[in-house]
Amino acid sequence: MNNFSATYTDQYQLSMAQVYFKKGHKDHTAIFDYYFRKLPYQGGYAIFSGLEDLLEIISKLKFNESDLEFLKLQGFDDEFLKYLKDFRFRGTIYSAQEGDVVFPTRPILQVEANIIEAQIIETILLNLLNFQTLIATKASRIRLVAGDAALLDFGLRRAQATGGFYASRAAMIGGFNGTSNVLAGKEFDIPVSGTMAHSYIQSYDDELEAFRDFAVGRPEDCVLLVDTYNTLKSGVPNAITVAKEMEARGQKLLAIRLDSGDLSYFARQSRKLLDEAGLNYVKIAASNQLDEHVIKSLLEQQAPIDIFGVGTNLVTGDPDGALDGVYKLAFSNGKPRIKISESIFKVTLPHKKQVFRMKDENGKCIGADAIGLSQEEKITEMFHPFEPYKSMDVSKFHQEAILQKVMENGEMLISKRTLKEISDYSLSRLSELPIEYKRFNNPHIYKIGISDRLRDEREKLIKSSKQKL
Amino acid sequence: MNNFSATYTDQYQLSMAQVYFKKGHKDHTAIFDYYFRKLPYQGGYAIFSGLEDLLEIISKLKFNESDLEFLKLQGFDDEFLKYLKDFRFRGTIYSAQEGDVVFPTRPILQVEANIIEAQIIETILLNLLNFQTLIATKASRIRLVAGDAALLDFGLRRAQATGGFYASRAAMIGGFNGTSNVLAGKEFDIPVSGTMAHSYIQSYDDELEAFRDFAVGRPEDCVLLVDTYNTLKSGVPNAITVAKEMEARGQKLLAIRLDSGDLSYFARQSRKLLDEAGLNYVKIAASNQLDEHVIKSLLEQQAPIDIFGVGTNLVTGDPDGALDGVYKLAFSNGKPRIKISESIFKVTLPHKKQVFRMKDENGKCIGADAIGLSQEEKITEMFHPFEPYKSMDVSKFHQEAILQKVMENGEMLISKRTLKEISDYSLSRLSELPIEYKRFNNPHIYKIGISDRLRDEREKLIKSSKQKL
Repeated sequence: MNNFSATYTDQYQLSMAQVYFKKGHKDHTAIFDYYFRKLPYQGGYAIFSGLEDLLEIISKLKFNESDLEFLKLQGFDDEFLKYLKDFRFRGTIYSAQEGDVVFPTRPILQVEANIIEAQIIETILLNLLNFQTLIATKASRIRLVAGDAALLDFGLRRAQATGGFYASRAAMIGGFNGTSNVLAGKEFDIPVSGTMAHSYIQSYDDELEAFRDFAVGRPEDCVLLVDTYNTLKSGVPNAITVAKEMEARGQKLLAIRLDSGDLSYFARQSRKLLDEAGLNYVKIAASNQLDEHVIKSLLEQQAPIDIFGVGTNLVTGDPDGALDGVYKLAFSNGKPRIKISESIFKVTLPHKKQVFRMKDENGKCIGADAIGLSQEEKITEMFHPFEPYKSMDVSKFHQEAILQKVMENGEMLISKRTLKEISDYSLSRLSELPIEYKRFNNPHIYKIGISDRLRDEREKLIKSSKQKL
Repeated sequence: MNNFSATYTDQYQLSMAQVYFKKGHKDHTAIFDYYFRKLPYQGGYAIFSGLEDLLEIISKLKFNESDLEFLKLQGFDDEFLKYLKDFRFRGTIYSAQEGDVVFPTRPILQVEANIIEAQIIETILLNLLNFQTLIATKASRIRLVAGDAALLDFGLRRAQATGGFYASRAAMIGGFNGTSNVLAGKEFDIPVSGTMAHSYIQSYDDELEAFRDFAVGRPEDCVLLVDTYNTLKSGVPNAITVAKEMEARGQKLLAIRLDSGDLSYFARQSRKLLDEAGLNYVKIAASNQLDEHVIKSLLEQQAPIDIFGVGTNLVTGDPDGALDGVYKLAFSNGKPRIKISESIFKVTLPHKKQVFRMKDENGKCIGADAIGLSQEEKITEMFHPFEPYKSMDVSKFHQEAILQKVMENGEMLISKRTLKEISDYSLSRLSELPIEYKRFNNPHIYKIGISDRLRDEREKLIKSSKQKL
């Protein structure tokens, strides 16, 4: 799945590349920052996801013959197309670890490459990181409220087309336990699970017979859907009958599934019926338009639900359709670069940089990341990026450098981790974050500051560019 | 791009399929309806999209060796896996034409196939049709307000991963004119266009020099981005200088692009400067968080914008993440099937069906579709699906049968149309729809009725299933 054409890009990347090529800028080194401006879901943090896919994909990115023929029809020059024929990404990438908690306006990843290579990968980089980070963050919010319940991704049918494939991966990083998506299960080594559809029950004249056949035909992790006709009068009693028959064969019914009606009420009543029948081991799964808010409410009502199947709201990141990640030039052709904007908050940060996470003596985040120049080893005082009189002495904190080299000369330097490893890392990073950043309503705002040297460099560039106007 | 693995499905489809296989139900014919329950964007219509992709993909769908090995590890039986090795979709599909205006609760597409094949394609069918219909509808709404302005899809970087590929196609069906997405342009034959990024300007010490190099290096459809430093003091004056230099070489600057600030104000001021310089042919393109509401407002302010680049809100369908399309069993093993639900509005319609669009003598929609049994040729009276005393005499209308056979024995029966043809068809169908269904606020509700025969068949099934409880 990781063989992408380098035409997975915006046309303007190639138009600009042709100009750089013709003007002899093609070997100019450029540095770009990837960051986002606004946290999704009005939350207090995001979970960085998509890095391994991105690195694998760009390490193999190329233009094939038919791509080049198509570009010729788009008016690109022969000399430039010859250059593209040998195109490979041979740059260096510094990045936060996949699964880390990340915050707005500070670099999560930096690309250092010749300017053509750096531009051509921009679109796919934004496309993959923005989406997976959005979904891993959503999944993490759901995991936060779900406690020990199992969380399953049921979203493929409502996903944004093939985006659902990457959604299943990101959901695991955010703390899900499995997916219904067989392809994602296979390609990303995700536990796959599934129950049955209403259509299966409907295709029989009789619900009990349908349950029986399923228990015989697919006894492994058998989950019976109990709401096709009447949950408490028909579905649960029939499931109990089948569970008893399975017991007689030395098998165990794994769970029943509720997919409509008041899930809290039906879960409680179903639990009662199951327990009265001595089936306290049979779990209750629930699905139907779930998200972090519904699950939180169900568990606050102590609904006895053990497994949540989450679909649409997980895989589309609803209500947020996208993370607003951007890719901004910080350095090129030997010089720091800046973008002045109508809005001060959109002025970019020049130079190659490092991000330091401030931690106390117990390794707990204190709620601040500081951005410095890459050659700085420790920040003494961090300054508010736009309010020059606000600053904070950070000299006493342990400072963890967040951006690490993950690719060099187009080769991945990090070894592949399992999704479980990335997810465990993510949970451990989240546990270092104080609880006030994790609440859903008006979470505490994580501080982002810049070093005095970076601030001074930015000031100098703003002044010199204003003089030119 | 259309070679998909049949593992692009939910695991429960395969679990159910194994049960059908073991129980000897594998040759039972089933009929499933595809429809959605709620119009996106609180709008009055949707544009059906994704059909051709779906048919092409399912006509080639299969399990390869590694898929079967993976399924073996998931506990599926050897005999069943042997059956899957030869799996192909060999069913029949009846569908509305791609691009048609469609409405909630009535079948848009019907699948008639053996029950295993019909189940296995469910997930990919929902995945592709739900998403493309969502995006084509969004694009259509933007086209409705944009008048003759050119509309370009700039969304790939914020799309839900590879879903962006299909978003570009659906955008064209809804009335867009082109995309920045090179891969989609190549695979779907979409006009591709692009301008330049701020990073390009920033990579130069001087904006004018950057513009000059671009006009020389890529003079075809040259669009200059004028807001990197100061739109009216620097960007537009420099663009005018370059436009004059291009004129001297017998070339023409196509457009300038505004990407920040108050687009209405900057467009008007830029237009003035361009016109004063005798450059009234140079167009103005605008981008930055556009959607149908912002574009409507800009044009109401008579902002002189000729080209709109729409990104995030188009390709993610924001604020709606998904169309809620479902796939419901209507017939199997020689019998009509129904799903009773806690909510009357979710009771399904049994039997193979046809949908009739009511038109007046001028070919205009009167705002009603009636659902009948497939053998009905004309509906005399249509009944409200859930309120038995509401009915409407439709005998005097011309009745167009909407569902046509598009696939038989797994072979596509329709010939491929260009996206322009599908889009033109869509516009012509939309023009048959009275204007009150197209407004954004509280649009008129399109009537969906059922024939008396279908109503009676449903009643009979509801009664008999209630008797069993």
